[in-house]
Amino acid sequence: MAELESKQIDAILDQMKYDSNGLVTVVVQDASDNTVLMVAHANREALRRTLETGEAHFWSRSRRTLWLKGERSGHRQRVIEFRVDCDADCVLLRVEQTGGACHEGYRSCFFRLMRDGQFVVTAEKVFDPDTVY
Amino acid sequence: MAELESKQIDAILDQMKYDSNGLVTVVVQDASDNTVLMVAHANREALRRTLETGEAHFWSRSRRTLWLKGERSGHRQRVIEFRVDCDADCVLLRVEQTGGACHEGYRSCFFRLMRDGQFVVTAEKVFDPDTVY
Repeated sequence: MAELESKQIDAILDQMKYDSNGLVTVVVQDASDNTVLMVAHANREALRRTLETGEAHFWSRSRRTLWLKGERSGHRQRVIEFRVDCDADCVLLRVEQTGGACHEGYRSCFFRLMRDGQFVVTAEKVFDPDTVY
Repeated sequence: MAELESKQIDAILDQMKYDSNGLVTVVVQDASDNTVLMVAHANREALRRTLETGEAHFWSRSRRTLWLKGERSGHRQRVIEFRVDCDADCVLLRVEQTGGACHEGYRSCFFRLMRDGQFVVTAEKVFDPDTVY
């Protein structure tokens, strides 16, 4: 992403439709092969930092804190594209993912497929979460 | 998707983590080329009908009603894969999309890209919403 002026960032943030908790849904997709990596949430400040730094930031609803993806693990997400949906309440970040997106050690959080009425794991871990977190 | 017995469907639905409104987030992805088509929500009943029929169903938060995608427009989504994320509060449906997913006439709801501080439309409409809705 190109660097943006503060005014430009405000103009983008003003167009988003935040829910009653001040959040939008964020889908993160690997720009290299279109794999959906994870879904998280962002408030206005998380989106601002994402646009300012070019690295994905989120709002953790459980910890009630702003969160730079990969801050602890190093598994950062460099934003290649920032897209918005028709309702402006959902962002699609197309990223370059370092390591894996999932805290359980997988590249994608969607490593379980429903098959014949059961969830089966269809991916190999790309890192050991015990050594990373 | 293979046909499932009612008991199998219940076992799947029991594993999902519904939010305080009884909903999970659903990301819909085109199985043919991994394009992210839309994001919506589903309650237990919408997920049940999706699993029973193999066609994507959602819960409309604005209309407060169950919703078969494409019921009016014919732009249905046949489910190829039903995936769940690590937290079990988000479903990834990989689908075969008839027509376009977006009510504004685009194939994907994410037809706007942030470029140089502005949102620009990067897709052509695949249908005329005025003639469909």
